[in-house]
Order: sequence, then structure tokens, then C-alpha cells
Amino acid sequence: MFFPKRAVLLLSGGMDSTTLLWWMNAQNISQIHTVAIDYGQRHRIELESSAKLSQVAGAASHRVLKLDLTQIGGNPLTDANRDVPAAADNQQINTVVPYRNMLFVTLATAWAETEGINNLYLSPVKDDYAAYRDCRRDFYDALEGALSLGATRESNVYIHTPFVDKWKAEVVALGLKLDVPYQHTHTCYEGIRPACGICDACSERLEAFHANNATDPLPYA
Amino acid sequence: MFFPKRAVLLLSGGMDSTTLLWWMNAQNISQIHTVAIDYGQRHRIELESSAKLSQVAGAASHRVLKLDLTQIGGNPLTDANRDVPAAADNQQINTVVPYRNMLFVTLATAWAETEGINNLYLSPVKDDYAAYRDCRRDFYDALEGALSLGATRESNVYIHTPFVDKWKAEVVALGLKLDVPYQHTHTCYEGIRPACGICDACSERLEAFHANNATDPLPYA
Repeated sequence: MFFPKRAVLLLSGGMDSTTLLWWMNAQNISQIHTVAIDYGQRHRIELESSAKLSQVAGAASHRVLKLDLTQIGGNPLTDANRDVPAAADNQQINTVVPYRNMLFVTLATAWAETEGINNLYLSPVKDDYAAYRDCRRDFYDALEGALSLGATRESNVYIHTPFVDKWKAEVVALGLKLDVPYQHTHTCYEGIRPACGICDACSERLEAFHANNATDPLPYA
Repeated sequence: MFFPKRAVLLLSGGMDSTTLLWWMNAQNISQIHTVAIDYGQRHRIELESSAKLSQVAGAASHRVLKLDLTQIGGNPLTDANRDVPAAADNQQINTVVPYRNMLFVTLATAWAETEGINNLYLSPVKDDYAAYRDCRRDFYDALEGALSLGATRESNVYIHTPFVDKWKAEVVALGLKLDVPYQHTHTCYEGIRPACGICDACSERLEAFHANNATDPLPYA
């Protein structure tokens, strides 16, 4: 694994990308530029979390890029008229916005190119495999190829997903060692604080802390 | 070459994509859904052209998707404070918005997926190779791979670029046979009508008509 001097991180403000930010700091990547995507999400708290956490981590810059996914439609994460499925419903596939990660990575890579940066980090984890095909490494290998071939000038683009083979519980274990301030992160699909505690995202989060015999510092309803 | 029954076409309202629309109609693709991207371009006339041409061609639907590329910045196509280079300046690479085509294709494919469509057409031509690496077929092969691996459900996505090995003059030759109403298309980078006649896009267009001993029906300044 090589570590670039300058990199862009897709920082949603959730638990995984925040742990990745602290992990990158621990690898002495000297310039970490964080990017959050305002895609019209219901949970605006995430954007505030991303900005706050960038500041706390001493990121080189923080930028919000807009990409309106509400126009793609039909998804409870962006459509306030659709109910967020509870974890027990086993309906996680219905929280997929098509190509969300691909659009985020490509937009962030476009901005990175204008800054002369060709290393991008993001934090898919193993738990995401089942419902989200765009969280698998073979997808990112293909995407890396397309981004390299599509760059303005001949060059390689590197998409780093260091947590892709880790379970969320392992990510939290790492984060607890790195003193990640999880109280500033946001996870709940409902976009509320205190968090709902019953949506798929909350359930996974709580399980990850439980697996580490740790207590999530976030308040729950 | 296979022809799907339903397809999405990225229709900028320029000469190449409009010829592609008429060509697709000639292949009896029964449902052609046109998508134009509002990316903050200076030449808003293109968006009007795209809507008009969709109507004239009898497209199944026409949709404008927004993707703000002005936030990537630094480009004369979106930044009114930057001069558009003349063709003679040989500065076409400076009209590149990083990953513009990749973002357009991915966004259109995301929308197409919600409609159950997995065939997308766009019209890069051979003249674009030199300045735009994302107009080459090897790039689209890689992109097709990433889109297939990143689709919500296991499926193949097909990105069709039937003009990729044709020179613009050949595309115009085809369009003249197909009675493409070129008077409704727009090309000029300056986004003005009458067209400037000196920017790179105008120059290429005029040359393509000249090579066919034909007269461009557009007025020029």
C-alpha cells in the first residue's frame, strides 16, 4: 500500500469515512482535502458533520460539491414522501440511488484533477456488499480504469478503498484505537438527532459498537 | 450491431448527437428517450435546440438533467470570465471540463436505470480524439464495464458510440442523407446566434459542410 502526499477524501460525515480520515492522518498523508456531496439528502446533518470533522482533523481543505440526485428520484434517502425501510424489512436495496458512489467519485475526481491531485479515498466496507454492488472492489478497479482513460491528460487515477474488506465492526475497532470523535459523526437514514435507532444504518452502527463492547456516544431516541 | 427497443440518447442539440437521433430513428429503435444536461453552460441555446429537436424527431420523452460543472471551475465553457480560444490558438484542451462525458453518461445511465433502460447512445466522433481522451472507444469500453459492475442489480449496461470512428464530415454526409434539420442545431462555443464562425466548434462544423460541398443552414456573424 502506498500513501500519496496529497489526496482527496469523500467524507460523508458518517462513521466509516470519518474513521478513514483519522486513519489517513495516521499514515502521514500531509494534505487531505475532504469533499462532501450535497445530493439533496434528507439527512442534512451529515453535511454539518463532515464540515465539523474536517476542521477537527485539520484537513487541508473542505469542499461541498452539489449533485442533485433528487432528479433521479424514487428513493427514500432523497424523497421525503417515501418511508425509510426498517432494517427488519430487509429492503436495503430500495435505499440505493443508482450510481450514487460512481457519480460522487467521478465528480470528486474531476475537482481533484483541477487541483492536480490523482488520489482519491473513500470508505465502502464489507457489510455494504450485499445490498450495494458499487461498494465492491471489482467495481472500483473498473472505475479506476475508466477514470484513468478519461483523464484530461494521460495519467493514472488511484481510487483507494482501504476498508473494503473490513467489516464495520473492524472499522469501529480501528476508530476506537485512533480516538475518532464518533460523537460528531452521523449515521441515521432518518436524518434526525437523537438518531432513530431502528433504520438499517442505525442498526448496523449499534451492532458495530456492541461487537467491540463499546458504547456509541450518540444519543438515540 | 444490435438495436435495442428502448434507449436513452444524450442529445446536446449539437450536430453530431442530432444526426445520431435521426440515425437511431432510421434503425427503428421504437422508444428513444432524449436527455440533455444542464451543466451551467454559457450556450443555453443548446438546451433549447435539444428540446426542439426531440420534438421534431418524435422522441418518446425529453428530459433535462442538472449537473453543475461550474463548481469544478476554470473552464471557458462554463466560466463567462474566461475567453473561448479561437481554433487558430490550438488551445482546445483548455475547453475540457474534467470528466464531463463520464459524468453525463453516468447521470443519464442512472436515470435510465430507474426507467428500466440499459442502452445509452452518445456521439463522440473521430475529430474529438486529439483533444478529448474521453471521446475514445477504449474509454467507453472501460466505462461500460464500470457501469455494468455498479448497476443496482446484476445486469449489463451498453454504451453505444456508433460514430466514434467517423470523422465529423462523414457524420454530416450521413445527416444530409437523413434530412437532419441542421438549422435547429447549435454548435458555437460562444453560445451566440448568429454563430461566431471562428471558435473551434464553428470551424469544425463549417469544414464538415464544406467537405460535403454543402451549405450550413445556420447564419454566421
